[in-house]
Formats: sequence, structure tokens, C-alpha cells
Amino acid sequence: MNGAGNLMDFLDEPFPDVGTYEDFHTIDWLREKSRDTDRHRKITSKSKESIWELIKSLLDAWSGWVVMLLIGLLSGTLAGVIDLAVDWMTDLKEGVCLSAFWYSHEQCCWTSNETTFDDRDKCPQWQKWAELMTGHAEGGGAYVLNYFLYVLWALLFSFLAVSLVRVFAPYACGSGIPEIKTILSGFIIRGYLGKWTLLIKTVTLVLAVSSGLSLGKEGPLVHVACCCGNLFCSLFSKYSKNEGKRREVLSAAAAAGVSVAFGAPIGGVLFSLEEVSYYFPLKTLWRSFFAALVAAFTLRSINPFGNSRLVLFYVEYHTPWYMAELVPFILLGVFGGLWGTLFIRANIAWCRRRKTTQLGKYPVLEVIAVTGITAVLAYPNPYTRRSTSELISELFNDCGALESSQLCDYINNPNMSRPVDDIPDRPAGPGVYNALWQLALALVFKIVITIFTFGMKIPSGLFIPSMAVGAIAGRIVGIAVEQMAYHHHDWIIFKNWCRPGADCVTPGLYAMVGAAACLGGVTRMTVSLVVIMFELTGGLEYIVPLMAAAVTSKWVADAFGKEGIYESHIQLNGYPYLDVRDEFTHRTLATDVMRPRRNDPTLAVLTQDSTTVEDVETLIKDTDYNGFPVVVSRESERLIGFVQRRDLTLAIKNARQKQDGVVSSSVVYFTEDAPQLPASNPQPLKLRRILNLSPFTVTDHTPMETVVDIFRKLGLRQCLVTRIRLKKLKFTSLCVCVQASPGHHHQEGRPASHGSDDEPGSRVHHVQLERRVLPPDGVNRYRPSPPSS
Amino acid sequence: MNGAGNLMDFLDEPFPDVGTYEDFHTIDWLREKSRDTDRHRKITSKSKESIWELIKSLLDAWSGWVVMLLIGLLSGTLAGVIDLAVDWMTDLKEGVCLSAFWYSHEQCCWTSNETTFDDRDKCPQWQKWAELMTGHAEGGGAYVLNYFLYVLWALLFSFLAVSLVRVFAPYACGSGIPEIKTILSGFIIRGYLGKWTLLIKTVTLVLAVSSGLSLGKEGPLVHVACCCGNLFCSLFSKYSKNEGKRREVLSAAAAAGVSVAFGAPIGGVLFSLEEVSYYFPLKTLWRSFFAALVAAFTLRSINPFGNSRLVLFYVEYHTPWYMAELVPFILLGVFGGLWGTLFIRANIAWCRRRKTTQLGKYPVLEVIAVTGITAVLAYPNPYTRRSTSELISELFNDCGALESSQLCDYINNPNMSRPVDDIPDRPAGPGVYNALWQLALALVFKIVITIFTFGMKIPSGLFIPSMAVGAIAGRIVGIAVEQMAYHHHDWIIFKNWCRPGADCVTPGLYAMVGAAACLGGVTRMTVSLVVIMFELTGGLEYIVPLMAAAVTSKWVADAFGKEGIYESHIQLNGYPYLDVRDEFTHRTLATDVMRPRRNDPTLAVLTQDSTTVEDVETLIKDTDYNGFPVVVSRESERLIGFVQRRDLTLAIKNARQKQDGVVSSSVVYFTEDAPQLPASNPQPLKLRRILNLSPFTVTDHTPMETVVDIFRKLGLRQCLVTRIRLKKLKFTSLCVCVQASPGHHHQEGRPASHGSDDEPGSRVHHVQLERRVLPPDGVNRYRPSPPSS
Repeated sequence: MNGAGNLMDFLDEPFPDVGTYEDFHTIDWLREKSRDTDRHRKITSKSKESIWELIKSLLDAWSGWVVMLLIGLLSGTLAGVIDLAVDWMTDLKEGVCLSAFWYSHEQCCWTSNETTFDDRDKCPQWQKWAELMTGHAEGGGAYVLNYFLYVLWALLFSFLAVSLVRVFAPYACGSGIPEIKTILSGFIIRGYLGKWTLLIKTVTLVLAVSSGLSLGKEGPLVHVACCCGNLFCSLFSKYSKNEGKRREVLSAAAAAGVSVAFGAPIGGVLFSLEEVSYYFPLKTLWRSFFAALVAAFTLRSINPFGNSRLVLFYVEYHTPWYMAELVPFILLGVFGGLWGTLFIRANIAWCRRRKTTQLGKYPVLEVIAVTGITAVLAYPNPYTRRSTSELISELFNDCGALESSQLCDYINNPNMSRPVDDIPDRPAGPGVYNALWQLALALVFKIVITIFTFGMKIPSGLFIPSMAVGAIAGRIVGIAVEQMAYHHHDWIIFKNWCRPGADCVTPGLYAMVGAAACLGGVTRMTVSLVVIMFELTGGLEYIVPLMAAAVTSKWVADAFGKEGIYESHIQLNGYPYLDVRDEFTHRTLATDVMRPRRNDPTLAVLTQDSTTVEDVETLIKDTDYNGFPVVVSRESERLIGFVQRRDLTLAIKNARQKQDGVVSSSVVYFTEDAPQLPASNPQPLKLRRILNLSPFTVTDHTPMETVVDIFRKLGLRQCLVTRIRLKKLKFTSLCVCVQASPGHHHQEGRPASHGSDDEPGSRVHHVQLERRVLPPDGVNRYRPSPPSS
Repeated sequence: MNGAGNLMDFLDEPFPDVGTYEDFHTIDWLREKSRDTDRHRKITSKSKESIWELIKSLLDAWSGWVVMLLIGLLSGTLAGVIDLAVDWMTDLKEGVCLSAFWYSHEQCCWTSNETTFDDRDKCPQWQKWAELMTGHAEGGGAYVLNYFLYVLWALLFSFLAVSLVRVFAPYACGSGIPEIKTILSGFIIRGYLGKWTLLIKTVTLVLAVSSGLSLGKEGPLVHVACCCGNLFCSLFSKYSKNEGKRREVLSAAAAAGVSVAFGAPIGGVLFSLEEVSYYFPLKTLWRSFFAALVAAFTLRSINPFGNSRLVLFYVEYHTPWYMAELVPFILLGVFGGLWGTLFIRANIAWCRRRKTTQLGKYPVLEVIAVTGITAVLAYPNPYTRRSTSELISELFNDCGALESSQLCDYINNPNMSRPVDDIPDRPAGPGVYNALWQLALALVFKIVITIFTFGMKIPSGLFIPSMAVGAIAGRIVGIAVEQMAYHHHDWIIFKNWCRPGADCVTPGLYAMVGAAACLGGVTRMTVSLVVIMFELTGGLEYIVPLMAAAVTSKWVADAFGKEGIYESHIQLNGYPYLDVRDEFTHRTLATDVMRPRRNDPTLAVLTQDSTTVEDVETLIKDTDYNGFPVVVSRESERLIGFVQRRDLTLAIKNARQKQDGVVSSSVVYFTEDAPQLPASNPQPLKLRRILNLSPFTVTDHTPMETVVDIFRKLGLRQCLVTRIRLKKLKFTSLCVCVQASPGHHHQEGRPASHGSDDEPGSRVHHVQLERRVLPPDGVNRYRPSPPSS
């Protein structure tokens, strides 16, 4: 026991950073969970000691709720501020309020006394730029000047946005949902949810949306809410020190984000459950719901839309739908599915091009160019000039008696005097036909420009543009069906449900169904999509049309490729995400995919008591595995545990610095007692405390689908395969890659006799399966490509 | 190879029942999943062969949706029929419709021409029994006669119900939710979801509810829907032959059940997710939602409530709530939590008494007695005489101008003429005070009688009685607050929000909040509860009060005991249910709980090629384990796989019947090739195909919370612990119990030298952990006690 006893106590103290993870690595959910249980156990047992400890344990138990409350408050507030700022800056592109420049067009005219109800969009306080500069509100010159300034403002906003992103927070670009999905599945991307990202993303989101680009604020709001969640995690060590617990908070934050984006708390929770989260225990469900509600009510008390409504698009329809209408609804579903497929393929192709060609080196130029094209093409068309969410809102709404929109230019029967709510079908006037042409142009424009917009280096969400495409298509179909039904009451398809003078068709409902279909085609959301839409209308009445469209759209889109836009972007960026939906068409066993293969070098292992510090350092330098199995001896290769590369590095560094007598030739041992070495040998190094004594193992006969299932459900980082020969696992769809090493590892010199203890078939060996990618060129693919100049 | 080759082919064919489970056993989720993947793979590869196979594969892919559609249609229809029948039979206790005896009171008077709006409850066609028999509608004699007949009908209904349950389907009693939770967690109870149970439960549910007992139809409707699900599973081999897939269907069916019970499809899905289901993949979420919607719309097209509403209690409030009102709402939450605790404790105590004493032997008498007491006490009080759901509906509703109920007997200000919807607070009239007394009595009555009713041998749900208790308490509190606010406008607590002449307090909302609180206290539902309530009102407006009450109620109730009523009943009945919420206060390792312990007999194992058929039969006879590890040899104890007891029994039985030459002294072997035996030996028996080559193993150093987590998430049936000594696991809270066997199992005769291949510390041994209880007396505790005469 040559002197080893006295330094064991020293090493039994933890050294810093053991148990943490490096950037761009995967966490071990089982370990995090077990660490949290330990922590909780300690607090519970301590709480019996004194009143103070009891209070501390109560505070600890309540900290989860406090974090949720804070997330709800902050994300609701941010969403409200963003809404107000976007409103103002979008209008700033067209003109300014003279009475108070910080008023948006609507606020300006509402506060004015000279506004009449009929002309509520016009008031002397609100002046377009041309009017303010030249004094002429009308005429060709004014139009050109307004046009020019509109484009100029748009370019200014987008330039500011992309510059801020590039200089201060490269992570603030995009929608953020693919990365959040990856993070929630257990990956570490440091700084992705940091304070700096939060600040820059909030500011640039306002700029990007105001610039009139074809993008929405919904996805980025989820990112913003998750940043809030991460921020408040750092207040409590329970969350900041445990990556597993932190992810529970982030799941709830994602729910709060969707909740404020649409004003749909239940939809938000289901979105988090269905689309974003990986590990979603019941406790998180309940807390997510709380956070989502707090966020929604905070937003309502800020009241950015000025109508006390929670929801982004409030709609109320007065007529039911009829069975025969399911046909156009399903056709809209097919359209949505096709749009989803087209969009995903084209967008991914474009993004790949951006990644691989010179294009990616000029992100600022790209944003400026796309903004310029968008603004120039958008201004002449009234449906693209305004903000996309206003457009969707108008398309969703039914034509009441008070509606002044061009879309509602129906020819009224002067003899009819009916209540406002129940207007029968009427023939369309010239305004409607005019609007239809403009909408058709807007549809083509939106489809094309969105493909190029999503993925640029500015915050950009996909929900609103997708919904706009669907809403335009839906409204066009709706008006067509309405006019057909009006002019051809006697057709067999209308006969049974649409009498003359009745209000049968609601074009707004078609717009809504179309929006749901297109959103479903792109994101492949199902339940959460229908629930969000349900919360917008607030009636179960219209769930069946929405569902029919959502299901059709998903099926059509799935027929062309299983992956939604988020999964496609995850794949494009090479994040190690283990999708649930992957299926195995061929029967594979763990033995078929494990590494090392037949011709690879042998598995890199440590022995429990015969490796020196130098050997370990060489092993760490020469290989890039995340960890190493520890075996009894190289001959027996009986597994005793697994040690993480990071822990090993830290432990040796720590020992070399602080522990006298540890030199390169010191023996590293993982056994409980020090090996018996001659007194002349250098001091051994005890590392049992960093050894995981319960590594996860499967036999080599385990089917791969079971292994993947275990990986997914337990959130493992690696899994050892026990088998006759010593190998490591490689499984590509798990993003696994470990070392290469040649040959089988036989038990040389031993007879392969049946039934004996030494029979190779019965020996347990081990193989390592890691969730980590190291591409052949050695460049870490996770790190987003650095902003090119 | 003495003749073994030719019969291997024979045995490679599957023999019947291999891979199925015995009654009252737990399924192996991993195995079921892997079997389904195999099946799917086979179909996919076949589908490329011919058009017919392609069609078959498409049919297979769509069968899930077909099953959902059928479940939705049937459970919606059954719910509608039950509603109509209950309506009619409840009214039959009081009188009969002369124009058509199958009309309920309401239908009878609505179809009559002589009904006026003011007196819409009275019409000449509807006659009370006394009026029909004696001709006198009023007077003491008529009252007594009506009273007598009311009690008589109630006794008749409940006698019929209990007799049908006892004679035809003992499983039809109770709410069924505890058993469904257990079944969904992977337990087999044959017949619990059978056709016979479906039929009898539907019929007796109508009888039980109509008898006026303090029970509801909501829980049993979930059971009925699950029976439908099970029924339709048998149409498709995909579901009928795979217990894992079957449970996915059952989860969806549970959602459909709640959906029709409350008219709340989203709430139903969340209920299934939160409360009932164990394994709920995303695919199930989407399908559950579909089934729930179909069921809800089927119910609506039957339209049993005659108002085209989906929901059971439709409410519409016209005033918002105020911050100050949160205080009474939270107090209602406290009441709900206390009620939940009281109810669970008292009910469980009473049920335990029923189980252990003579009481349990007379279920018919018990039902008759409770019905008698209920009917006798209920008749004099108008709030208990009517059906409970009508009572709740009245309590939830706001007092409009047209309301004729005694509860709305307010003193109107004759000078006021306002729109109907916006009636200001008014002083209460004598009718209200009278109603308050009756409500208080009804509250006490409901609280006491429900404790004795739930758990009797008739179908009985708990939702409606719990909600009734809460609604009564809430309405009383609501009226109290309303009157205080009216009479004391100037009190500081009312000053800020309740001006004279305003409509500040809605007593109906208090009733709703109280109902949510009480339901939450009893069931510990959270999100699903709030969502169900939200779907009843259809407005996000009132979510905050509901949530405040639900959270308070859960916290208060949890402070007295973590288990809800369903978990308590699961425990009372001793079902092997692994609750997620169990926490480990002490740190235990697998080694501490595994069996055999130190003084137990050694682990019962099979060797791969040296056991005879006789040995195996003896082992099966002498032990009662569900399966046995297979090792290389008794000396080495290297694990090669695990074999299920049931498969072993079936295989040997099959071989003895069909295979010549297999006798008691035949060697059973699990290796790939037959052992080399002298030609004089009897034919060996090859059993490799029933051997599980990838048994789930953990090391003995694995913390128990990890083991339990793995059990829960992967749905294991057993887990082998590998360790130096051969032991089996015993873990009581997992309901594990295996064999007893003495002593450590050393590697006798081998030196325990360090570093050598034979070092005991590195050898992998195995230990078995089963989810199965065999109580000391050997009686299977799962089977519900047989109906006593």
C-alpha cells in the first residue's frame, strides 16, 4: 500500500468541472437525472436538521414555479414590445404621425378627433412621406417618392438587422427552432441561448419584420422565450448546474413562446410537446401550461393589438360549414402538402448552395439584395405592401356589413335589410375580381420570395409566410366556390345545402383552412396546429375542416419525404438529432453496426490497474473518442466500467498540478484498493471516482431498433456492446463515429472448446456507441459557419 | 450430429401461443415493439412483390385510422344512447308521458302543443305516478305515493344493475379507470375489455345512473370506449396479436371516452395523456385526437341534449372576473383539496373494510341498502331529487332574465330595463335563501353518500358527484360574495371593482371553479381538468380562476398524500402499477435489492447444453418464476440469454406431443449446433428459437432510480443484474418477487487472483428482476374477489 492511502482522501474531493460537458457534445440524460435525484435527496435529508434548511428546501421545491412565472412575464413583455415596435416601424416605411412620431398609423388616427368612421384610415395627423416633403399627397411624383422611401426604409432596416446579427450575435439568425430541437434533445451549444443572443434577436427581429421581408416573428419568438428560460435558469443552481433539468425549463419556455406568438396557450403547450421537446414529463406539461398562460396574460395586459384579444388573428364566423365543402377543403390540403414539399426541397437546395458556394460569404449583400427585390416588387401590390399578418387577418375575416376592404366589394341587394351578421351570398363586384388578380400575383410572389428568404442571416420565422400562402390560396378558392354557388344554385353539388338568398359559403373559413394546410405541409405539425387554429376561432365547429386539411396536407407531404422543414435544416446543419420517426427497413443487429469493424484497429481501452499516466495521455492525444471502457486486463477484457474522456483529462491535469509524486510513469488504477507495487515505483493515481460503474450495455444480438429506442428513451450518450470480440459501434443515423482499428480480437492461445469457461461465445466484451459526429476532415460541423465578410 | 439436423427444421416453425402472455402477467414492451417492427418489415418487403401485396400493405397502414374511426363512431353512438336512456329512466321514477311512454319529461312537454313558455315544465301529457293512479296531482297522499314509487323504481333499477353485473360480467363494476391504467401500463386482465363487459356495462350504467345513486357516467364511459377499442382491435391482426400496439389503440379509446363524456375532445386527449396512458407516442396523440373528434361529432349528430351542443354543461358568462375574486377562488381550491383528501381516505377505508369483512359477501344487499337510503333522503330535497348532471348544470348557469329557478329569485328593481344579458347585482329574495339551505343539506348528503357509493358492485363514476360537491359549495360561496358586494359596496375589498348597479359577481362561475377544485382534489388531474373546463365555457377568459383553484386544490391534497383516487384503488387492489411519481429517499443500488439474497437458495438457471427435459420440467414445477437465465455452464455462469417460463412449457409440451424421440432424458440445448452426444442417447431438443439472446442487463452498481426509470421508460418485464455473484433481484415497489435461495454462489475451486481472466470481480453474472407479485398465501391477488352471494 506504498503511500497511496493518504492521497486518496485528497482525490475523493471533487475537482472542478467534472461531470460537465464540452461545447458541441451530447449530454447523458441518465447521469443528469441521477445527479438531480442525489441533490434532491441531500436537500430532503438536510431539511430535517434546522428551520433554515427546511426553508431552503421549500424554496428549492418552489423554484420551478418561480422560473415559470418569470419566463411568462418576460416573454409576454418582450412579445408585446416587439408587436408595438413592429407596428410602428412598419408604418414608418410609409409615413409618420405628426402629433406624436412614436404612434403607428392606427394609433395616430384613433387618437385624432378628426377621424370619421367611414374614413378611419385617413386623418390629417398621419402624413405619407411625399405629403410631408412636397406637400402633395396624390399624383405620380408623390407615388414615386413614397415608393422610393419605402424601399429605402426597408433596406435600412434589413441592413441594420443583418449587421447587428453579424457583429454581435451570429446565433441570432434564422428561426432557431431546429437548433432548439437539437438542444432539447441533449446537445450543448454554448451561447445559443445567451443574454447577448436574447438582446440582439429581439432587436433584429423587430427590424427584420419591419423591413417587409417575407418572414414572421413566430419562430424567433420561441427562440427569444427559450433565451429567457435559459437566463432565469442561471438564478437557481438546481437548473443551472443540471443540463437535464435545464431542458425541462426550456421545453416550458418554448410553449410560452408559441403562446405569445399566437395567443394560444394550449396550442403552445402541445406545440412544445409534439414538435420541439424530446423529454417531456408530466411535471413539465403542467409547468409549461402555467408559463404559457402567464405569458399570454402578460401580453394581453400590454394589449398591443388594441382589442383586448389574446389571439393574433381573431375571427368569428356566422355560418356553419357543409359536408360538400369538404371537397375544396381537402383540395386545399393537397395544395398545402405540395407547397410544403416544394418549399422544403427548394429551400434546402438553396441553403445548401449558400453553404457550399461563394454566396455564403456575402450574407449582408444577400440580405440587402433580397430586401431590395422584395420591397420593389411588394410596393405596387396593396396585398404585399402591408405587413403579412395584417394581410392574413384580412383574408381570414368574413365580409360583414361594415367591411371596407376591396375584397368585400359585393353587389348588395338594395331591397334587403337584414341583421349585420347574416348577409346572404351576393354576386361579386369589380373590386373582388380586381382583388383576386392582385391576390394571385401576391401568391406567386410570396411562394418564390419565401424560399430565398428563410435561412438568411437575420431572424426569420416561417409560420406567417406559410400561412399567408395558404390564406391567399384559400381565399381565392373560397370566393370561387361562393360565386359558383351563387350563380349555379341548381347544380347538383349545391342543390342540397345552398338555397338562393342563403349565406352558405364563408370565404374567410377557406382562407383559414388553407393557412392550416400550408403550415401543416411545411412543419408537419398536426394536433398542435389544429389546436392553435381552434384557439383562434374559439369554436369546435370548424375543427373538422381544419383537421381534414391538416391530415391531407401531412399525408401528401409525407408521400414525398418524411421530414418537415425543421428536421431538414437539422440534417443540413449536421446536428446530432435522433429522430423518433426513423424506421429500419432492414433487420440489423448491434453486431452489424458496432465499431471497430473487422479490419479496424482494436478498441481503445484502459485497464483497471496497469496503465500509466503516460499511456492515458497518449491515448487521449491519439484518439478522439468521448470515453473509454475500463477492463480488468487486456487479456480478459472483462468490463468494469466506463470513463469519460473529459473527466480523464481534467483528473490527470488536476493531479499533475496539485498532487506530488504523480509523474508520467505513475500507474492509473480504477480498483477500490491500490495495486501492490514495489516501493520504488512512483505514486499511483486513483481514479475510481470518475469511473462510471454502471455503464449501459447491450448484447451484440440486440436488434438495432431496440438499441435506438433505448438511446432515445433513456437519452444515453453511449452504449457498450458486450460480445465475444472487442469492437466499437458505428451507427450512422445515430451520428456515431468512433475509432478505426484492425482485426478481430481473439482470445489468442486459448482453445475454443465447447462448454468450458473459456469458450469465446460466452465471454462478455464491449463495444462503444457514441452520439457524436466527427467528419473525415476533422472540422467540427456543428459550429455554424462563421459569418463571412 | 446424431439425427438432430432433420428435426431442427420442424422446430424452427413457430408453435402456437409462443410469445403470448398468461392472464395477470405483465407484457414486455420491448419485445412487442420489436415484433411489430419485424411484422412491418415483412409486409414492406412483400409489398414489392405484387399488386395484391401492395394493397394489403396499404390496408395495413390504414388499419389504425379505420380502428380509430370505428371507435369514434361506436363510442359516440353508445354515449348518445346512454344519455337518452338515462334521461328517460330518470324521469320514469317520477312519472310517465301519456302521448308516448318512451319520451322523457322534457321531450314530452316540448312536443306538446299545450305547453306555454312560462310553465314549460308542465303539460297535461306528462303525469306523475300519483296523478295517473289516483287522479290527484296535489296533496299529502299524492306526495307520499310519488315518494314511494320514486324509491321503488330506484330500488328496482339498482337491483337489476347489480344482478346483471354479478351474474354476467363481474368486471363491469366500478369506474374501470384504475384497471385501465394498469392494463395500459402493460398488464393483462383477460375479459376486462371483452364484448360481454361492454354490453353489460352499457346496460347497467344506464340503470345505475337512473336509480339516482350518487354516481356519474363519465368514468364508466371511458371503460366502455376502451371495450370498443378492444373489440375493433380483434378485426386486425396487427392489433389483436400485439399487446403493445393494442395498448396504443386503447389509449386513444380512453380519449374518445372522455371526449363523449364531457364533449371535450382536446380535454379527452390530454386526459388520456396525463392521467391514463403509460406509453403515449406522438402517433397515438394524433390518432387519439381523431378518435375523440369523431366520437364527439357522432354524439352531436345524435343530439341527446336537444341543443346541438357538444358539451355536457354549456355555460356562457357575461361578466369578467376581478383580481379580488381570486381570494374566494383559492379558498374553493383549499376546500377542493380537503374534500379530495377526505374522500380518498374515507372511501379507501370503507373499501378495505368491504374487502376484509363480511360486508363484501353481500354486494346486492349493499347496493339495495345504499340505494334505499339515497332515494329516501334525496326525494324531499329538490336539489338531490333530480339527476346530478341537471343539478350541476343549474348551478353553473348564470341567472338570466328568463331563469325560473328558485336560485334566481332575486328582487328586481322595477325601474330598471336593461338588456337581458347584463343584469346588475340584485338583493336576494326569499327563494334564494331557501335554496341556500337546501343546497347546504344537499352538500352534506352528497359528501357522505358518495363515500359509500363509489366502489360498490355497479358501474360508478366519480366525476359527476365530485363536481356536484364542488358546484354546490361554489354556488353558496358565490351567492355569499355577491350579496356581500351588493350590500357593502363601500367595503375596502369591493370598493375598487364593484360599483352600485354593476354586475360584478357571477355565482355560476364560482360553482364552476368549485367543481374544478373538487374534481382536481380527488383525481389530481391538472392540465386536462383545466382544458375540459375551458372547453365547457369556450373562453380563455376564465382559465385563470380555474387554474388557481386547480393548483391550490392539488397542492393542498398532495400535502396530505400524493396519491389520487385511482392510484389509491390500484394500490388497494394490489395491481402491479409502476407509478412515475414514486421517489427514492434513500440511495439504493441494484445489488441491495436483487434476489436471491445472501441466505436464499441459488438462482435457478438453465445451462445451454447440459439440462435434460426432465430437469427443466422439475424446475418449472418447483419454482414459480416467469423465466430463467440461460448460462454456458453452472461453473462459469456466463449469461447467454433468457427464456420465458411460458414459452418453455409450451415448447416442451409441443415437442413431447409431436416430436418422436423426445423423452425425459433428452438434452435441451440452446446453442446453435446440437451438442455432440453418443448415438445411444435420446434425441436432443433444440430450443434456441425461444431464447431471448438480448436480455436486458444492468450492473449491480446501477442506482435503483435508474433501474426503475429504465423499467418505466422501456416497459421491461425483467432485468438481469450482472455481478460477481449469481443472484436474483427483489424490488418490492416494483412488485417483484422471485425465488428464495441460500448463500453466495462463488466460483469454487478457483483462485481469486488479481488481473487474471478468472478474477471474480470481473465476471459477469446475472440476476433477475420481475414485475410480478405472488403473495405469500399463493392466491392471485389481481383477480377481483369473486362476486359473493
